[in-house]
Amino acid sequence: MKHALSVTRSEDFAAWYQEVIAEAEMAEESGVRGCMVIRPWGYGIWERIQHLMDARIKAAGVENCYFPLFIPLSYFAKEAEHVDGFAKEMAVVTHHRLIADGKGGLIPDPDAKLEEPLIVRPTSETVIGQAMARWIQSWRDLPLLTNQWANVVRWEMRTRMFLRTSEFLWQEGHTAHANKADAMAETLRALEMYRAHAEEDLAIPVIAGEKPENERFPGAAATYSIEAMMQDGKALQAGTSHYLGNAFAEAAGIRYQDKEGQQTLCHTTSWGVSTRLIGGVIMVHGDDDGLRVPPRIAPHQVVILPMLREDDGDAALLAYCEELRKALVGQTALGEPLRVLLDKRAGKATQKRWGWVKKGVPLILEIGGRDAAGGQVSVLRRDRLYRPDGKVNFVAQGKDEFLGNAVAELESIQSDLHAEATARRGAQIERGVSDIAGLEQFFAANQKYPGWVELNWSRPTGATLDGVVAKLKALKLTVRNTPLGSGTVTGTCLFTGEPAVERIYVARAY
Amino acid sequence: MKHALSVTRSEDFAAWYQEVIAEAEMAEESGVRGCMVIRPWGYGIWERIQHLMDARIKAAGVENCYFPLFIPLSYFAKEAEHVDGFAKEMAVVTHHRLIADGKGGLIPDPDAKLEEPLIVRPTSETVIGQAMARWIQSWRDLPLLTNQWANVVRWEMRTRMFLRTSEFLWQEGHTAHANKADAMAETLRALEMYRAHAEEDLAIPVIAGEKPENERFPGAAATYSIEAMMQDGKALQAGTSHYLGNAFAEAAGIRYQDKEGQQTLCHTTSWGVSTRLIGGVIMVHGDDDGLRVPPRIAPHQVVILPMLREDDGDAALLAYCEELRKALVGQTALGEPLRVLLDKRAGKATQKRWGWVKKGVPLILEIGGRDAAGGQVSVLRRDRLYRPDGKVNFVAQGKDEFLGNAVAELESIQSDLHAEATARRGAQIERGVSDIAGLEQFFAANQKYPGWVELNWSRPTGATLDGVVAKLKALKLTVRNTPLGSGTVTGTCLFTGEPAVERIYVARAY
Repeated sequence: MKHALSVTRSEDFAAWYQEVIAEAEMAEESGVRGCMVIRPWGYGIWERIQHLMDARIKAAGVENCYFPLFIPLSYFAKEAEHVDGFAKEMAVVTHHRLIADGKGGLIPDPDAKLEEPLIVRPTSETVIGQAMARWIQSWRDLPLLTNQWANVVRWEMRTRMFLRTSEFLWQEGHTAHANKADAMAETLRALEMYRAHAEEDLAIPVIAGEKPENERFPGAAATYSIEAMMQDGKALQAGTSHYLGNAFAEAAGIRYQDKEGQQTLCHTTSWGVSTRLIGGVIMVHGDDDGLRVPPRIAPHQVVILPMLREDDGDAALLAYCEELRKALVGQTALGEPLRVLLDKRAGKATQKRWGWVKKGVPLILEIGGRDAAGGQVSVLRRDRLYRPDGKVNFVAQGKDEFLGNAVAELESIQSDLHAEATARRGAQIERGVSDIAGLEQFFAANQKYPGWVELNWSRPTGATLDGVVAKLKALKLTVRNTPLGSGTVTGTCLFTGEPAVERIYVARAY
Repeated sequence: MKHALSVTRSEDFAAWYQEVIAEAEMAEESGVRGCMVIRPWGYGIWERIQHLMDARIKAAGVENCYFPLFIPLSYFAKEAEHVDGFAKEMAVVTHHRLIADGKGGLIPDPDAKLEEPLIVRPTSETVIGQAMARWIQSWRDLPLLTNQWANVVRWEMRTRMFLRTSEFLWQEGHTAHANKADAMAETLRALEMYRAHAEEDLAIPVIAGEKPENERFPGAAATYSIEAMMQDGKALQAGTSHYLGNAFAEAAGIRYQDKEGQQTLCHTTSWGVSTRLIGGVIMVHGDDDGLRVPPRIAPHQVVILPMLREDDGDAALLAYCEELRKALVGQTALGEPLRVLLDKRAGKATQKRWGWVKKGVPLILEIGGRDAAGGQVSVLRRDRLYRPDGKVNFVAQGKDEFLGNAVAELESIQSDLHAEATARRGAQIERGVSDIAGLEQFFAANQKYPGWVELNWSRPTGATLDGVVAKLKALKLTVRNTPLGSGTVTGTCLFTGEPAVERIYVARAY
């Protein structure tokens, strides 16, 4: 069967991923190493993610702020000293002026060298910590709940659009609390917010749980993540939430006067999701004809395509389409007014149709002059693109029938995409592995769609954990997380031989 | 009369401005030169501005994208060569890694020097132009209408919060068109959008018009602005829209195949407004008790302050306040559901009241136990803060009466703030100046509140204009703009002695 893309997922998943991004006009290389241009369709999806996530953030009483792009080099010196795994790949600003080089070019002006270099923020714990130290005086100021939407830069050697770029867009929540219990509750609240966003908004099933010690954010006391399974069986860490203990509060001097008048260190948290989520949406919901966007995050949920003939009949056709559009935007689906585009651009209808198929618009309507005259519409559900005979699955309906069903159709697409991804994930989690040889064998036998292995382990730490990590690394595997509420487990740890205490997922990962 | 701020506008306008920002908790110095921390109240106002402006941008068919933070140095070399007035004060990234200096500190790693330095975008014409050259093939692709919300950096020697900071937040619209007429129409559409936003959303009266040749954006064929008068009589350029002609299209190679099959250069535009608007809101609407936020851009339009006594009566009081809140958020004012905060924080009610007064919340309700029992509310309009006798102007009302009036009160505050600013501006525009000496005299006589002078001039260009600009500069004056539709004018140009052809405003400016 012929598909809209030239590469299928099963032929070459990585090439397929790049082709979806190009053909759906989501993003492209910018000419600047590791930085992408996010095009309207990709950015529109990000705006939807922002809109839905921001509402969740605000509903939790967190207030948005904005902190500087630049962080003085000295702020990092302390961190570098104390924190194992401190990442030093950052963009360093050293000059503040250009000057002509006398050969028709420009160079950094040697007279405009900064006394102290500035770092383009890779994350904002240090600078936000300093602000918190100014803002927090007494227990009355706690909890302090802040968030920012921002761009950050981490110099990456190997980049992949949306998944790993030198510059990316994200939100970073930063909170300060009176004690460990409050800070842990906030850490887990953010994690649950991410889980709900992934499942309900992105239609992506995820495992919310704690990362092993070796995967913690440098300096954190505990790191939690949501982990999603891509269609190639690999894991994607789609969001993280950190309980930072006192360490960052101590470094920045975030203290408060408690009710007894004592100066006390705060406990802090941080949590973030990024444009990486868009990569997850592609790899969970895309198919061999392009992207399929869950209706909640689709910039347009319905696209109406009038089959214009550049003749006298067009006016009536357009009037009919406009009437349809108006009737649709007056309806509410998934808690918001419908988002509908009437696509009047010049060009062939078939070409335009396949453009929207590749972009993954949930519902596409093609309307010809005869439909308009007869009060009909021709409806294509993007998630049911072909009939068993291989023909494109347009369904003819009376206009009123369609208008009465549109909301239910969108809600059904949203839940069907989630159900499909959940079933696929379920089929690719292996629970029968009982020793290292079995683990090796399982991944050797499933090179193309490795899936995940669910295991019970003894939660090793320190040098023992390092040994486990090294063994897994040799197999290109990592421990993803321990699901929350993993409950009591039985049996023996396959790595240490000790009694198992909790459940984990082992997988290949992006 | 005592006021909430320690400095009044008439005593020291610049110090008053800084105090409003500090006391309303809008922003503060970050410890990074020229960069500010925007605190929740300041950022909340920016979010409102973004929300309203973004709707206007999308309604015009412009699509949001995101382009890289970094621009290769070589992209600027061509511009620097061709464009007079090319600004070279930019942040230059030269390294991509830090390394320990062996003395407990960090330095840029000499082995990680970039082959080509990267510039932190001061504006994005060059990089967006290159994308447009890729995206535009034929006349069918035109117009191409893009916008981005982003942070930009221009190294500023003297900074002032919101008005001139090294990093600021803005939107930059970039569009490409088939011909001059279309591009000019877009330039003026954006200008009108800014005018409407300033007047309708920010309640700031502005003059929309063309900047003189010497004030054009480097490389532009024409630059338009909206100009607002601050309470100290100075002008603030609050938004600009540029018709760029073919110059940027030629530099980036933005060409299209026209209907006759000819390769043709596009005409481009760009337009932007920034966090500077917030500085304008402060200097137009602030008073000696702090900020006054127009209801359309107020993060909270109504704050409900229960006068808690930490006793058994609090529960009934809070229930009454919550009932009020619910009744308010169910109403629509100025096209959106009311934004209402029930402020339950610990602390003295009077202290909390003055906090909200300084932040400029349009309506403040204080509710005591007796009000709750009697079905009353006590309402304070921020724009009518004091009675003639100097007392704070709380008005007692029955709850239902208040609920029936709340929408009208907010609409009245929005229009009253606009009317007050318009009347003040009208009183500070001088039309009777007929020669240079008179101009000098006028500004010498009005040092504190200079106001603007409206003149007719001959629209000089080139060397003649340079002479005029130099004369004005000596008086610390600039030509702000020529209002659109300035009509036919009579008389002689005060600078050149030639027949006047258009009207201009001359002013001191931020």
